[in-house]
Amino acid sequence: MTQLRPDLTEPRTAADAPGPDFVEADLRSVERELEDFLAARERDAEPYGEEYVRLWLAVGESARGGKRLRPRLVLSAFHGLSGGHRTADAATRRAAVQTALAFELLHSAFLLHDDVIDGDTVRRGRPNVAGEFSADALFRGAGFSRARLWGESAAILAGDLLLHAAAQRVARLTVPEATRSRLLDLIDRAVFVTAAGELADVGLATGMSASALPDVLSMTADKTAEYSVSGPLAAGALLAGADDAVVELLARYGRLVGVAFQLGDDLLGVYGDESVTGKSAVGDLQQGKETTLIAFARGTSHWADIEPLFGRTDLSAADTARLAAALEGCGARDFAERLLADHVDAAIDALDSPLLPSALADTLTRVALGCVGRAA
Amino acid sequence: MTQLRPDLTEPRTAADAPGPDFVEADLRSVERELEDFLAARERDAEPYGEEYVRLWLAVGESARGGKRLRPRLVLSAFHGLSGGHRTADAATRRAAVQTALAFELLHSAFLLHDDVIDGDTVRRGRPNVAGEFSADALFRGAGFSRARLWGESAAILAGDLLLHAAAQRVARLTVPEATRSRLLDLIDRAVFVTAAGELADVGLATGMSASALPDVLSMTADKTAEYSVSGPLAAGALLAGADDAVVELLARYGRLVGVAFQLGDDLLGVYGDESVTGKSAVGDLQQGKETTLIAFARGTSHWADIEPLFGRTDLSAADTARLAAALEGCGARDFAERLLADHVDAAIDALDSPLLPSALADTLTRVALGCVGRAA
Repeated sequence: MTQLRPDLTEPRTAADAPGPDFVEADLRSVERELEDFLAARERDAEPYGEEYVRLWLAVGESARGGKRLRPRLVLSAFHGLSGGHRTADAATRRAAVQTALAFELLHSAFLLHDDVIDGDTVRRGRPNVAGEFSADALFRGAGFSRARLWGESAAILAGDLLLHAAAQRVARLTVPEATRSRLLDLIDRAVFVTAAGELADVGLATGMSASALPDVLSMTADKTAEYSVSGPLAAGALLAGADDAVVELLARYGRLVGVAFQLGDDLLGVYGDESVTGKSAVGDLQQGKETTLIAFARGTSHWADIEPLFGRTDLSAADTARLAAALEGCGARDFAERLLADHVDAAIDALDSPLLPSALADTLTRVALGCVGRAA
Repeated sequence: MTQLRPDLTEPRTAADAPGPDFVEADLRSVERELEDFLAARERDAEPYGEEYVRLWLAVGESARGGKRLRPRLVLSAFHGLSGGHRTADAATRRAAVQTALAFELLHSAFLLHDDVIDGDTVRRGRPNVAGEFSADALFRGAGFSRARLWGESAAILAGDLLLHAAAQRVARLTVPEATRSRLLDLIDRAVFVTAAGELADVGLATGMSASALPDVLSMTADKTAEYSVSGPLAAGALLAGADDAVVELLARYGRLVGVAFQLGDDLLGVYGDESVTGKSAVGDLQQGKETTLIAFARGTSHWADIEPLFGRTDLSAADTARLAAALEGCGARDFAERLLADHVDAAIDALDSPLLPSALADTLTRVALGCVGRAA
């Protein structure tokens, strides 16, 4: 799933801008809450044996590694729409922090299960839960098939635990019943739509679903945009008491930016610098991932050159370079980059509304522009 | 995403029996709620393509197949401790139905992920989600490795969806805040402890954890007893407003019965009649499952005869029969059957308390005795 890296250098802004300082302060609260949660779980795991403690330590590693895009979006929308300290009361602010953490936990859970599905053992440049447990099993002489089973089982359980933890956070919010119910709707929708997108992704990769370009794009939006952007923004807006029209506007923006993120990710997956992205630059090609690049290339005469190499697990560096060049030669790279730019433009256009405070619009514009930068 | 009200037609029953009829009536409400949930999800899935609709249909198949042990325990404890219609108000009764459904959804989710971990494609005598999706992929020419990926991915996602649905049910209960919070604690504990047990189970099967008999027994209790018996009984008791002492008594009973239940399952896994149980009588032996039978056998001189066959995926019918006979010959079967009987006795003893209404004690005695019957 997506590695989102918006370059959000916070501006030093005027005193009455609704709250980058609040966002930063609350992001630190999210970190503290996460640490408290993990520490408690590591302690609770002790009576269940050292392997379970190790699982929680590995879960902690995986949850600690992110860039906190989703919490930042929850909190940016929340503070941006509640006018910072002027209207957000302390209890609602605490609820926003918990909601921000819930989306981060959901993200970590999805990454864990996505990695199991993709057979990935590395995430953010380090062994993931499956990688760590599998490697340990290998060192202890378990052999490949048992090591793989041990690693994948650990990662499935780790994802289950974080998925459940996300729902628990929202369930326990001390906000009015109606607000909690709507937040539960949002997180429910995030899980439902992401699962749909993930299934479509695997369906494309295994050839079980047709791989026309529109299918690839809607898969992209479902798999990433809902839980990464639309959901978090809508949750923040809801907690700020924003109008439904604002929530809808943010959802539309979120879908566009989410697709842009994924397009950026697809481009990084072929043209990115592994040492910078922490993501393998051959993984997508070896796994036969049905990205926009591939969907475009299929419709060109160059496909005959690409097909024999695409999805092979034994790609050499030279093969990878040939594939990347072929995808560029057939126009797929250009197409994906243009499509990305179009989505960014449309997302920024969606922000052009008197309903949106200008400071929040600025933040979200920078988020959208960050999608272009990252593909470079 | 609809939440329909259960149709609580009041049964015509004797005035003060604390309610087997109520339990049966509410179990029918659980079924209706489940059907409503599945129907809504199948509809909601339509915009996301036919594969996602098929996933929900397969989820429905898997969720429909159970014996409803967990809902029955929730409702038996609830009605048994609230004295039937005399004290249970309609709103709390609806909450009990929702809680009963939550535990059933949790169960279905765990089965789905457990099957992925075990590589099982059959459950209750029929293809499970992974089996159905894999077989479909094979028929469509996907080849084995893609078919397996498709099936396992579908099952991982299906489990995620039901795990989340379980948490949503509890989160949305319209009960006092403190009650909901304690119910959230219970389901959180169920997920936490079950994951610990499942990890220990895989650890034993892959040789990553020591396999002494006490480890096998505590794994058994963690993997099964908490979410299957202790949790559901505690939840029903809590909704009935029972004392903490009763909740503790039921938790103790639950742990004993849960172990008995798993011991019965282990015995069925070797000595059961496949046509009756719907469970393969070779699966456990082929998968190298570290059951009590095996843990006992390891400590005997017969292990040298058992070890070469145990965990082999190519066991013939003759091999299986030899293994079963060897496990009987070394005393493992006797030992497991005695241990099962001891757990059943201890569970029934735990019910001997003036705090427990006799009708509920009778029901739970029958549940405990049922663990012995099923191993026959």
